[in-house]
Amino acid sequence: MEHKLQELKRRLLEIDNLEKAAAVLSWDQSTYMPPGGAEARGRQLATLARLAQEKFVDPAIGKLLDELQPYAESLPYDSTTASLVRVTRRKYEREVRVPPAFVGELFEHSAQAYQVWTEARPANDFARVQPLLEKTLEYSRRLADFFPGYEHIIDPLVDYADYSMKASTLKTLFADLRVELVPIVQAITSQPPADDSCLRKQFPHAAQLAISKEIVAQMGYDFQRGRLDLTHHPFETNFSVGDVRITTRVKENQLSECLYGVLHEGGHGMYEQGVRPELEGSPMGGGASAGLHESQSRLWENIVGRSRDFCEYAYPRLQAAFPEQLGEVPMETFYRAINRVERSLIRVDADEVTYNLHVMLRFDFEMALLEGSLAVRDLPEAWRERFKVDIGINPPDDRDGVLQDVHWYGGIIGGAFQGYTLGNVLGAAFFDQALKAHPEIPAEMRQGNFGTLRGWLVDNLYQHGSMFTAPELIERLTGGPIRIEPYLHYLRTKYGELYTL
Amino acid sequence: MEHKLQELKRRLLEIDNLEKAAAVLSWDQSTYMPPGGAEARGRQLATLARLAQEKFVDPAIGKLLDELQPYAESLPYDSTTASLVRVTRRKYEREVRVPPAFVGELFEHSAQAYQVWTEARPANDFARVQPLLEKTLEYSRRLADFFPGYEHIIDPLVDYADYSMKASTLKTLFADLRVELVPIVQAITSQPPADDSCLRKQFPHAAQLAISKEIVAQMGYDFQRGRLDLTHHPFETNFSVGDVRITTRVKENQLSECLYGVLHEGGHGMYEQGVRPELEGSPMGGGASAGLHESQSRLWENIVGRSRDFCEYAYPRLQAAFPEQLGEVPMETFYRAINRVERSLIRVDADEVTYNLHVMLRFDFEMALLEGSLAVRDLPEAWRERFKVDIGINPPDDRDGVLQDVHWYGGIIGGAFQGYTLGNVLGAAFFDQALKAHPEIPAEMRQGNFGTLRGWLVDNLYQHGSMFTAPELIERLTGGPIRIEPYLHYLRTKYGELYTL
Repeated sequence: MEHKLQELKRRLLEIDNLEKAAAVLSWDQSTYMPPGGAEARGRQLATLARLAQEKFVDPAIGKLLDELQPYAESLPYDSTTASLVRVTRRKYEREVRVPPAFVGELFEHSAQAYQVWTEARPANDFARVQPLLEKTLEYSRRLADFFPGYEHIIDPLVDYADYSMKASTLKTLFADLRVELVPIVQAITSQPPADDSCLRKQFPHAAQLAISKEIVAQMGYDFQRGRLDLTHHPFETNFSVGDVRITTRVKENQLSECLYGVLHEGGHGMYEQGVRPELEGSPMGGGASAGLHESQSRLWENIVGRSRDFCEYAYPRLQAAFPEQLGEVPMETFYRAINRVERSLIRVDADEVTYNLHVMLRFDFEMALLEGSLAVRDLPEAWRERFKVDIGINPPDDRDGVLQDVHWYGGIIGGAFQGYTLGNVLGAAFFDQALKAHPEIPAEMRQGNFGTLRGWLVDNLYQHGSMFTAPELIERLTGGPIRIEPYLHYLRTKYGELYTL
Repeated sequence: MEHKLQELKRRLLEIDNLEKAAAVLSWDQSTYMPPGGAEARGRQLATLARLAQEKFVDPAIGKLLDELQPYAESLPYDSTTASLVRVTRRKYEREVRVPPAFVGELFEHSAQAYQVWTEARPANDFARVQPLLEKTLEYSRRLADFFPGYEHIIDPLVDYADYSMKASTLKTLFADLRVELVPIVQAITSQPPADDSCLRKQFPHAAQLAISKEIVAQMGYDFQRGRLDLTHHPFETNFSVGDVRITTRVKENQLSECLYGVLHEGGHGMYEQGVRPELEGSPMGGGASAGLHESQSRLWENIVGRSRDFCEYAYPRLQAAFPEQLGEVPMETFYRAINRVERSLIRVDADEVTYNLHVMLRFDFEMALLEGSLAVRDLPEAWRERFKVDIGINPPDDRDGVLQDVHWYGGIIGGAFQGYTLGNVLGAAFFDQALKAHPEIPAEMRQGNFGTLRGWLVDNLYQHGSMFTAPELIERLTGGPIRIEPYLHYLRTKYGELYTL
């Protein structure tokens, strides 16, 4: 049995090596690759993806899993070996349905679409990406159709990112949230907006990067096992538990985009850096779902990073880094500025309160596109109309409208966005639990000490990688299924103090 | 037949994709990877190398080559298809002798040795790398022994880099060169050295990079299909004809290391950027040998870059970039400084005249280590002794002695260095031919116009990639085999004007 287990691990490690090699190539594509490299990069990524897929769906892996099944069942559920067999089997049973040639084709198409998007977005030219996006939709439907029997065509695609989540559950959850959020947004936006002019001065590029690095390192992101680079659309990626990279973009006339972008990606990065090394090289060696991943990016970016406690630590450092710009600005002004709520164009820049409305709109579009009730060519117009209704403003162009997010242009349509709202909801629930276990956390944060909070998250969440499913982890951390109440309580408390609700 | 040809190309492209993916991972390892990434990177590179090797030595490729042989022989020797079959067969017959597992193991070992070297060199700690270097020697011998029947154990290793070159030929060539070079070095170093203090001022990092980029771009290196990054030990690498990257290092108290390093790597890069795109994705899609590659790096760095004609164009630009440091320095002083000949420690910084003595010493050590007449543990001492005799100075430490070059620590022992001297010799021979065809080249260079020279090199050398062997290309360009006379004539003319010879 030990021999078979070693053979399974050897095969999984080889697949992981191919997948991580592909991740390096994707990172390079999004950070440093010159324009001339795009075409070959597409086929290089496609080859790696196809080989990894071929090797994973090899019947020999199915056979090993079958042979190891009785042994795994004789072990405790949460042992590494039982989990390896269980988690690998779940992935195997999904992946065998998708032909490797399809995976390679999709990868190549995505790389091409991404490259065109990086040019089409600044040129505000949806027409350039439209035929590619139509092909993406076709690929997304074909991918879903490898899983017949779904309730909704989006379900198998959501399942990749957020295992066991379904459109029906998400629709209810989003509707419940929406009912509560819309009145809060209305109440706040009918009051005078916070003055955020202190964030809109000139902040030199290099100084923004330096202070962002200092703060995210203080939170616990380890630069010996990571790095920060520039990109169009920030992301976190990892090539091993020892090499977890984050990216950002800098606007010199805006302080928060870089800083809070780094805290966001730093949250993802700390999750990956916290995975137990022995889980590496297998399907367990990374964050458990999109929702759980976003729970960490949003927790560190918002619940921590936009709290008054955090400002007590960080703001004096920001003032020291930017004495001319912030020296005379009181902390309370900065605190209100970073928590300004407004109807705005860009999801990633949206405040905590309106953010989920941006997500719901995208999720609904994904469903409509996949169902066929909305055509890709009608998407920009539909976007403008829905945006006006939901967010309350008119997008002036496609660049900051339907072209703003990389997700559809660098991947598939379906399952790309729900994780952000799940993350908002879960982040608040987890932070609640951490506070119950360690009431000293807020006082520590004021001193720039994030060790207790991060330690609790490592112990309870990060170290487990994907040993458990998201529902299992949510149960372990909160004692029950996903609930929106802690998040709503968090928002009402925080914003009730800043505005009249 | 067309079907079989397509099948061969498809397989070769898949292998190329894996090899180029490995090149991206290696580039990242040498430029941006954080320390924590080293361990996993080794196994990722090993997996890619092993898979590429497995796929290349697949008997199906041998069968396709056999089936295509009569067809290929019916085509002109220099047709793309005939060349594809010929060049692939030559590589196939070599590669089938090396087990894929061995290739993977060697790759993993090399990555580890490289990482340790990056720490051991600054620490001046040969003992740290010694056990790894011993293993490298063992791997190198095992690799050679997959090719029984060699005249000298180094021959199969040299063959990888410089096809068909043998120790016996190289010994004669190096001896002939040595006889001529030693008196020149003695004559020059007995005269007062040129004053190079103008190169030893403070030159800010960013400004050095900027002017180096400007000049290499003017020579013809295309930044739309390339980029320049920082590293420990500069190199050129390529991931496609559209993505050819160069690297450099900067010393703020020394101007020429960065500038001439960039011109050197830029020469390699222009060679790769000039390969016909239709040769991509096959064993023909890159420079033909180490010697030919170095002929281009050394031609652009030295024959062009250290010429008076080049200075007419470049020096006013350098003065504009560094007005305080160079504004008052006459061009002739700069010209003499960049051509200062001296007995010095570091090969890559050595002048054109002493450079080959550094190479010969290394080549002799490679032979002695492989033969077993020198043990790795005795190498530092042997280095110091031989260095004193050949170069005429005492290395003060191992850091700038036996630890100075990456080659043995990031690859194998054997075949790593002869290419530099072959390159010096060939670069002069090719430049001679270019001048015969286009006597206007020197006048154009004075105007910063390098198009005619580069065009001649593209037409006669670069575009062919590895369609032809190095001996074939040397014959095509010069009408005969490798000859040292043009190089000696170049040195005597140039240095005879600078010194009394």
